Amino acid sequence: MQQLSNGLKGVRLHQLLSKETHGHLQTSLENTRAISTVSLWPFSSQPRDFSQPNSSWSPEMRKVYDHYNTLCDPDTENGEEKRGPWRKLPSYNRSIKYAAGGIHLSKLIQAKARLFTRNVKEQGATFEYVVFVNKEEKRCVCVFQAGHLLEGAPGHVHGGAIATMIDTVTGTLAGFLSGPIMTANLNIDYRSPMPLGSVVLIHSALDRKERRKTYITCKVSSTDESKLYTEATALFVSIGVGHLFGSRN
Amino acid sequence: MQQLSNGLKGVRLHQLLSKETHGHLQTSLENTRAISTVSLWPFSSQPRDFSQPNSSWSPEMRKVYDHYNTLCDPDTENGEEKRGPWRKLPSYNRSIKYAAGGIHLSKLIQAKARLFTRNVKEQGATFEYVVFVNKEEKRCVCVFQAGHLLEGAPGHVHGGAIATMIDTVTGTLAGFLSGPIMTANLNIDYRSPMPLGSVVLIHSALDRKERRKTYITCKVSSTDESKLYTEATALFVSIGVGHLFGSRN
Repeated sequence: MQQLSNGLKGVRLHQLLSKETHGHLQTSLENTRAISTVSLWPFSSQPRDFSQPNSSWSPEMRKVYDHYNTLCDPDTENGEEKRGPWRKLPSYNRSIKYAAGGIHLSKLIQAKARLFTRNVKEQGATFEYVVFVNKEEKRCVCVFQAGHLLEGAPGHVHGGAIATMIDTVTGTLAGFLSGPIMTANLNIDYRSPMPLGSVVLIHSALDRKERRKTYITCKVSSTDESKLYTEATALFVSIGVGHLFGSRN
Repeated sequence: MQQLSNGLKGVRLHQLLSKETHGHLQTSLENTRAISTVSLWPFSSQPRDFSQPNSSWSPEMRKVYDHYNTLCDPDTENGEEKRGPWRKLPSYNRSIKYAAGGIHLSKLIQAKARLFTRNVKEQGATFEYVVFVNKEEKRCVCVFQAGHLLEGAPGHVHGGAIATMIDTVTGTLAGFLSGPIMTANLNIDYRSPMPLGSVVLIHSALDRKERRKTYITCKVSSTDESKLYTEATALFVSIGVGHLFGSRN
C-alpha cells in the first residue's frame, strides 16, 4: 500500500478511474441501472452512452445485444417489479477530471484527452462494444464488434486491439467487484486469428480474491461460442479511494 | 504445422503480414534501408512513412530519434562507406492485400481497413513511434510518444495501448529475425502508470529460438531509462511463407 500511495508505483492505474466505470466509484451494486438516467457526469450536458445500439452494428451484434439487454429487464410479480442479476453498463468517452497524472499534462492535452476505446467518432470504425455484468455470478460478458480501423495482419484484428478489449472488460469486472483498481498483469494466449468485422463475446469471471489482489479470467469466442479466439488471465490490485482524489487539490 | 496450415488455428496472424513489416518478407536483412527509397508498395503512389519526424513530436522525441537515426548513418573509411548494425524501419498505414481473412470481409471493409497503430490522421493524437533494429545484437528499440487519444485512467495511457505497442515492437523484431510469424502469447507486467504525452523507449531483444518458436523480451521505460513502466515477454510462432500467399487465389 505504501508503494501504491507513493506515486502509483507498481501497477498501472486502471481505466476504472475513467468515466466509463465512474459510476462504480459512487454507487452501490444495487443501483447501477440508475447511472443511465440519473447523471453523475460533472459537466453541464448529458454525455453520450457509446454502448447504445447504432446503425453500424451488424444484425449479429444487435441480436446478441438484444439477448443480454432483455436479461436486464425487471420481471413483474404480483404487481411488483423484481430485478434479476444482470445490468448493462454505460460507456463514455471522457475521463473524469481528478487525474492523478494531471500534473504531468498540459492543459491542451487534458482538454483533448479521450478514452482509448472511444476516441474515433465514426461509428463502427474501431471498437463497438457493450458490457453486461451479472453481480450474483461475479462475471460479465462483453459483445464486441471489431471495426476496419483495428487491422493488424491483413484482414485480421490487431493483437493489441484484442488486448485492449481484454484489459477493458476484465478491468470493468474487477472494478465492479473490488472498487478502485489498477491493472498489474495481463497474460494473453492468442489461439486463433480474428477476422476484421467479427462480432465476438468476451466472457470474464472472477477467479479469486486475495487481499488486495483480484484475479480475473477471460475468454474471447465467436457469438455461438464454437470458436475460441483468445484466452487470458488478468491481475488487478486495489487502490484506496482517497488516493484517487488525493491529487485533486 | 498442420494445425497452422489448417485455417491459421492456434495463434494469431501477426502484423508482420501488414505493410508495416512488409519489407521483411521480400528483402534480406542487408538491404533494409533500401525499403525507404525503393518502394515495394503494390499501389501507384508512394505511401507515407509514418515513422518520419513531424511537428507533433516533442523535443524529447526528436532528440532520441536523432540519436538512433545517427547510428544508422554509414561511416566512411578510406573513401568507402561502411554500414553499422542499426537500421530504421519504415512504417505504413495499410495492409497488403493477400489477406488470409479476406474471404471474411466485405469489399468495403477491405478498402477502408487501416493498421490499428496508424489509423488516426491527426499527427500526435495517438501512436507516434519509430523502430530501430540492431541485427547484430538481435534487438530493437522503439521511440514512442503517447498521444491524448490513448487515455485509460485519467491522465494516463491505456493498458491496451501499451500492450499494442509491445505487440508491435516485439512482433517486428520476431519477424525480422524469424520471417513470417504470428503472436501466440503476450505476458505483460504493468509496473508503473504512464502519463499521457510521455515519450518512452521500448527495448526488445531475442531471448531464444526453439524450432518454430521465437521468444522475445521487452521493457518500456523513460527515455533516460531511470523509470520502468512495463515489462513483458512475447512468444511468436513461425508460419510458412507459402501459407501467406495461399489465400491469394
